[in-house]
Amino acid sequence: MKQSEVAPATGKLGIMVVGCGAVSTTFITGVLMARKGLAKPIGAMTQYDKIRVGKNAEKKYLHYKDIVPLAELKDIVFATWDVYPQNAYQATIYAEVLQPKDIEPVRDELEAIRPLKAAFDKNYAKRIDGDNVKTCLTRWEMVEELRQDIRNFKQQTRCSRVVVLWAASTEIYVPYNKQYHKTLAQLEQAMKDDVREQIAPSMCYAYAALAESCPFIMGAPNTTVDIPAMWEFAEKMRMPIAGKDFKTGQTLVKSGFAPIIKTRNLGLAGWFSTNILGNRDGLVLDEPANFHTKEVSKLSTLETICKADEQPDLYGDIYHKVRINYYPPRNDNKEGWDNIDIFGWMGYPMQIKINFLCRDSILAAPLLLDLALLSDLAARAGRYGTQRFLSFFMKSPMHDYTCGEEAVNNLFEQYTMLKNAIREIGGYEADEEID
Amino acid sequence: MKQSEVAPATGKLGIMVVGCGAVSTTFITGVLMARKGLAKPIGAMTQYDKIRVGKNAEKKYLHYKDIVPLAELKDIVFATWDVYPQNAYQATIYAEVLQPKDIEPVRDELEAIRPLKAAFDKNYAKRIDGDNVKTCLTRWEMVEELRQDIRNFKQQTRCSRVVVLWAASTEIYVPYNKQYHKTLAQLEQAMKDDVREQIAPSMCYAYAALAESCPFIMGAPNTTVDIPAMWEFAEKMRMPIAGKDFKTGQTLVKSGFAPIIKTRNLGLAGWFSTNILGNRDGLVLDEPANFHTKEVSKLSTLETICKADEQPDLYGDIYHKVRINYYPPRNDNKEGWDNIDIFGWMGYPMQIKINFLCRDSILAAPLLLDLALLSDLAARAGRYGTQRFLSFFMKSPMHDYTCGEEAVNNLFEQYTMLKNAIREIGGYEADEEID
Amino acid sequence: MKQSEVAPATGKLGIMVVGCGAVSTTFITGVLMARKGLAKPIGAMTQYDKIRVGKNAEKKYLHYKDIVPLAELKDIVFATWDVYPQNAYQATIYAEVLQPKDIEPVRDELEAIRPLKAAFDKNYAKRIDGDNVKTCLTRWEMVEELRQDIRNFKQQTRCSRVVVLWAASTEIYVPYNKQYHKTLAQLEQAMKDDVREQIAPSMCYAYAALAESCPFIMGAPNTTVDIPAMWEFAEKMRMPIAGKDFKTGQTLVKSGFAPIIKTRNLGLAGWFSTNILGNRDGLVLDEPANFHTKEVSKLSTLETICKADEQPDLYGDIYHKVRINYYPPRNDNKEGWDNIDIFGWMGYPMQIKINFLCRDSILAAPLLLDLALLSDLAARAGRYGTQRFLSFFMKSPMHDYTCGEEAVNNLFEQYTMLKNAIREIGGYEADEEID
Amino acid sequence: MKQSEVAPATGKLGIMVVGCGAVSTTFITGVLMARKGLAKPIGAMTQYDKIRVGKNAEKKYLHYKDIVPLAELKDIVFATWDVYPQNAYQATIYAEVLQPKDIEPVRDELEAIRPLKAAFDKNYAKRIDGDNVKTCLTRWEMVEELRQDIRNFKQQTRCSRVVVLWAASTEIYVPYNKQYHKTLAQLEQAMKDDVREQIAPSMCYAYAALAESCPFIMGAPNTTVDIPAMWEFAEKMRMPIAGKDFKTGQTLVKSGFAPIIKTRNLGLAGWFSTNILGNRDGLVLDEPANFHTKEVSKLSTLETICKADEQPDLYGDIYHKVRINYYPPRNDNKEGWDNIDIFGWMGYPMQIKINFLCRDSILAAPLLLDLALLSDLAARAGRYGTQRFLSFFMKSPMHDYTCGEEAVNNLFEQYTMLKNAIREIGGYEADEEID
Repeated sequence: MKQSEVAPATGKLGIMVVGCGAVSTTFITGVLMARKGLAKPIGAMTQYDKIRVGKNAEKKYLHYKDIVPLAELKDIVFATWDVYPQNAYQATIYAEVLQPKDIEPVRDELEAIRPLKAAFDKNYAKRIDGDNVKTCLTRWEMVEELRQDIRNFKQQTRCSRVVVLWAASTEIYVPYNKQYHKTLAQLEQAMKDDVREQIAPSMCYAYAALAESCPFIMGAPNTTVDIPAMWEFAEKMRMPIAGKDFKTGQTLVKSGFAPIIKTRNLGLAGWFSTNILGNRDGLVLDEPANFHTKEVSKLSTLETICKADEQPDLYGDIYHKVRINYYPPRNDNKEGWDNIDIFGWMGYPMQIKINFLCRDSILAAPLLLDLALLSDLAARAGRYGTQRFLSFFMKSPMHDYTCGEEAVNNLFEQYTMLKNAIREIGGYEADEEID
Repeated sequence: MKQSEVAPATGKLGIMVVGCGAVSTTFITGVLMARKGLAKPIGAMTQYDKIRVGKNAEKKYLHYKDIVPLAELKDIVFATWDVYPQNAYQATIYAEVLQPKDIEPVRDELEAIRPLKAAFDKNYAKRIDGDNVKTCLTRWEMVEELRQDIRNFKQQTRCSRVVVLWAASTEIYVPYNKQYHKTLAQLEQAMKDDVREQIAPSMCYAYAALAESCPFIMGAPNTTVDIPAMWEFAEKMRMPIAGKDFKTGQTLVKSGFAPIIKTRNLGLAGWFSTNILGNRDGLVLDEPANFHTKEVSKLSTLETICKADEQPDLYGDIYHKVRINYYPPRNDNKEGWDNIDIFGWMGYPMQIKINFLCRDSILAAPLLLDLALLSDLAARAGRYGTQRFLSFFMKSPMHDYTCGEEAVNNLFEQYTMLKNAIREIGGYEADEEID
Repeated sequence: MKQSEVAPATGKLGIMVVGCGAVSTTFITGVLMARKGLAKPIGAMTQYDKIRVGKNAEKKYLHYKDIVPLAELKDIVFATWDVYPQNAYQATIYAEVLQPKDIEPVRDELEAIRPLKAAFDKNYAKRIDGDNVKTCLTRWEMVEELRQDIRNFKQQTRCSRVVVLWAASTEIYVPYNKQYHKTLAQLEQAMKDDVREQIAPSMCYAYAALAESCPFIMGAPNTTVDIPAMWEFAEKMRMPIAGKDFKTGQTLVKSGFAPIIKTRNLGLAGWFSTNILGNRDGLVLDEPANFHTKEVSKLSTLETICKADEQPDLYGDIYHKVRINYYPPRNDNKEGWDNIDIFGWMGYPMQIKINFLCRDSILAAPLLLDLALLSDLAARAGRYGTQRFLSFFMKSPMHDYTCGEEAVNNLFEQYTMLKNAIREIGGYEADEEID
Repeated sequence: MKQSEVAPATGKLGIMVVGCGAVSTTFITGVLMARKGLAKPIGAMTQYDKIRVGKNAEKKYLHYKDIVPLAELKDIVFATWDVYPQNAYQATIYAEVLQPKDIEPVRDELEAIRPLKAAFDKNYAKRIDGDNVKTCLTRWEMVEELRQDIRNFKQQTRCSRVVVLWAASTEIYVPYNKQYHKTLAQLEQAMKDDVREQIAPSMCYAYAALAESCPFIMGAPNTTVDIPAMWEFAEKMRMPIAGKDFKTGQTLVKSGFAPIIKTRNLGLAGWFSTNILGNRDGLVLDEPANFHTKEVSKLSTLETICKADEQPDLYGDIYHKVRINYYPPRNDNKEGWDNIDIFGWMGYPMQIKINFLCRDSILAAPLLLDLALLSDLAARAGRYGTQRFLSFFMKSPMHDYTCGEEAVNNLFEQYTMLKNAIREIGGYEADEEID
């Protein structure tokens, strides 16, 4: 494909975020501040990263926007859905992530963002209360109302394209059920039959987004777009989908650190990861049914990087354990503690401990920006269905497990996939191998 | 080049190690045990790593020995030089790195390795005492005696090739001096004139090795082979050289962790590294003049990975500090503590702390094996002079600073260089770019 | 009381330990080695500590044995009960706590210690399997057989006194039930009626010990001696009891570190404690019902040191969380990671993290020695019932909660209680106040 | 002494602080805010601590102010000396310790505090620059001018008593010199002779304070009041002095943690302490001559708590090392990392690591308040000379080393001394022994 075949990024880009909590407001406030020149969107690949295109003599290093047509920050308009009625300014203050000096200059713009009523089902998030919710009789009605929300937003803001991002809480675990989740027809029937325990509210958002020709991104560990029915719908609507679970603190480090061990051919006996976090995300995960969703998402990382079958002497017996603990004194300042038991020459053991004092929303915000801009790019480039090149941003990247395909979790391999995609869309050769 | 053009690894390979301390004895004992099937040489790339050769449909994953002709463990014979007269068995016990069960099965072989007298100058390592030393009047005499040692060893063991590795202490810092170190002629003259403050004993080992057509590897941070005169000699003798400073604990982690930060385009405000270690290496480094040599070696890592000029917003103001502390309670169990100050979205700060409870000799031993086998391979493949593909194993990789060339410190880029070289020597295409 | 009124420590002291696992064998091996002069019983107060007796001009510092009559190491004889039939030598090797050089010199003595059949009920420890168990029809039969074991041991070894210590696994949680645990009559009736869910096997050991006039010590977090019925029996038999849960790693640090915060009048917002451990103890605690017993024991520490009602500004809102994780790569080398959120001047927050790489059995072994010698002392001094002066050694010290009495958890206050008791028994004034 | 013999705290108390940096401004701002009810003076013993008075039946727990007559916050007036001319509001903002919401309510009061010209000698603090300095020809002139400053302040504010606290930078190390520092006569002569390398500027402040009948407190590690000449002067003027070096982060923890090890009779093989800090204090300490002063102060702690001669098996061979590193990314948020190598039963080693993310000024501020109020109390109670009961607040407490007296560094013993003194001054019995 040549770059000229990619539709240009003309007009406004609408970004509709499910959830107006710490992550969403940090993202929105940052974009508003950055486009006034009052903050730097650090951590956003689309704003900072430079990659090589061409080889040898042709080699040059370019920002993404100089390779592919990306929407600019000035062209973005925002909307949110939330169970709480507070506007984005109030929500930003409540979140206690940003300091007043980083919020006040865009107070008016934030106040204008009032959350739409959420499509919510308390059975999916017991610890969450809030009355800014739609009164829908069935899941299908949820879909209908969400589609109307998207159409209204598009009309009011006159934006040419919309992307929908889930940045709300983790729902309870919904495992793949081949009676309801395999085909699009099954899924639609289950929505109409209102099979509530099989159709999470998040699936209604995803369905509505695709039905309205918007890319959909799942930022929580919900299995929403991890089902063949949704893949079928994305193909049918020719829209990109990506998920799941924004790769922020501990898993980011794990997906980058495990490659160090693997590259040096050191052995790995165990990896114990514990997390303490105190924001609403932590509160929800304190509920075992919701934690399970997260645990499944976090556990997959290691085994696909340090592979038992390829190096049984080194990785044949890894004990991997992940714990998440709700701990209110920290609020949004999530903290990870990892203990890694490695072994070297003649089997002698050594230990590495990593203590990451991170900020959940600060790490997540640039991911939202990148995912919005890059899924919009994918849509304009005619790339639809599962976007594997966005695995870089995901704790548990989408992959077609029904045919035995494996996820790519190695941060550096994910980066190669991202670079290759940008090159390809930009009309260059996708010239790196993953090895 | 086709693989057929590489000379085969027939006959015995002699490995002569300068220093018979913790690192050397752990290496030797491990090789002896491994070839009896009693231990696993974990961490050695030549024994475990598999790399891709070919692309797309041709792609396959092979061990190094299936791509290039490597010497086998069974064909190795050992010798050492040391200022202490203890044989390798005694030295292994003294080092307290390995447990008796991992030493006793090869006790006889170890006892047979009695150290040759060392070429030593106490001014270069004040904290070291030992009387198993050569009585040389001049540096040139040192060279002569060392050459004789190599010839004797070769004759006695009937080995076909010899590699010389420095695994002895850090000498005091000898900065590049263009009056003595620029040309081979200058260097030889200085040796003959016995300019002791410009010619470290290690330079005599390196010179002697090259003069006897042996590759030379500098495993300490000494600047021995970091001078144009030595490069000239290696070119002249058509022999490989590599250095400097085995990449073991903290720098290994740093060279792998900094790429995570860089890849995610997070900002870096500071990196504080401290080390405690209690073996003889630590004792020597407790002397400020010797520590300086080490510090120069360790400081270079970060700045070539996170580059200020390419990403001034992210890396324009990094405060990097490295400390090494002699701390006897730990003996060989070196410990690193790194504090990394990063910043993300809108400049908000976060912290990462890495505590590495490592074992110096356990991490170093496989490097000696790889460096011996790969430099022998390079010699047989006709690759001479500085071996940049061995940067992977080095804390401060050799590079031609006289023409502004930069070292490659990023662990994953070093790995790409290593893989490309193995491919090339094996007759495959060196098909990866470093970006 | 004058020292002369304390019965002398003549004859042999029998120590019968329930459980012949890592803790017990480390204790026994250490005592056997120490009395041969081959090891030092470090950590044992009875062997090392010196305390002041007298005040002002009279002041002098003495070892315990110079104040009170203590049994000597040479006079100790051992027995164990265990569900596994391995003798103490085999169990010591299996535990992998001690190195061969610290075991072999007393191999014969260890081999002679063959475990008696255990009184066991798998419902109390699902993860434990073993067939060296008594076949008892009822709890009362268990008691009868255990009493016979004690009498046999006493006769065979001709020891003058016996102490029984529980160093076996944590049982599932048995909360105080006033219908079964309040009076001795109730307890005996429940044993006879074989009310298995109310009478843990450990209660049979405790009952049997007291019935045979032996002090009983509960080293696990089982509620065995935390019930009024058992207090009544101890009073009746005029025997000392103490419990519960040997204070080894994380709680030892917590009970010493919390006083630092309290003494400096700093505020405390939260304390998160996580543990990884891989021995059989960890395996048992991986079962939720058994973990609950432990959690109740560990959570009590903090709140009695930093009291909300006395300093509401400082300790009115502490979030305290304790987690234990089974993690096999570590075996006996338990590791604790504590995160402590404090606040100071004007409420500004600070953090302290404590990472304790400890060894469970190494920390526990001296406690067994001290508890055996000191409970034997108490018995000879006519001190019976709950021994509050032994709180120093316990994670969750016994106290009469039925009348609102609080446990003393502050390490330094516990130490004062210990010193005062030694002084008193030795005929000196108990001259320290706890404040 | 009965409480009635202590002069009451009538009238205003002037607190003159040398240095108007982070520590001083955090202290002053906090006091101003606290007396408006807008902040809590957490960490101040005089404001929060309760101690027992009386024993047994008479026992009661009282705040200090209910035992002894203390000055109240409302009666305090402030002055500072500094080399920089910024007023206290500007200095508070510059320090970046407190958030705007904790400063603005007292902005006017802070702005009114304009620093007096400092008595400064750049040779004592090379890294400090500033021109708000006195132009004195000799040390004696410094004294004269400082005395005049104190008199002026007293007159202007009409305060009845003044206390002088040093909260400025660490000067270079001035070891005790018996030719200049032994007698008061020597000291005065050296000042008059202007022997600059023997008379640090801080000595002029101390001398001036005493000469004007004000207590003097040394909060830095300077040896200012650690000389017999100054003790003689304090006795002569009947004024209290105390020092040295406010006990804030790492040493606070060390003086509390070492007692845990000692109390449990565990062995100690080594203690490695490293610090990173980025404020002006850190900058000054980056200069080796100034660091040496600090190191001497910090090293003394451990050995007086875990005593080699009393327990040679346990403490006979401790390797203690302290490092301080200037690291600007942290500013005032000092961080300590301690590695503690202990050993237990049979000599088996274990490790404890403590990572303290503290805030220097937040920990120091309450010490200034306590030291000001308690030294004023001591003066009114007729206690003069070295105040050992204030050791609790000091990293390196004053003690008469000329006669072999040892400092008390154990935090809990220091606390006992503090409590006994409060009791005594309050007319109660000093009823605790230190053991």
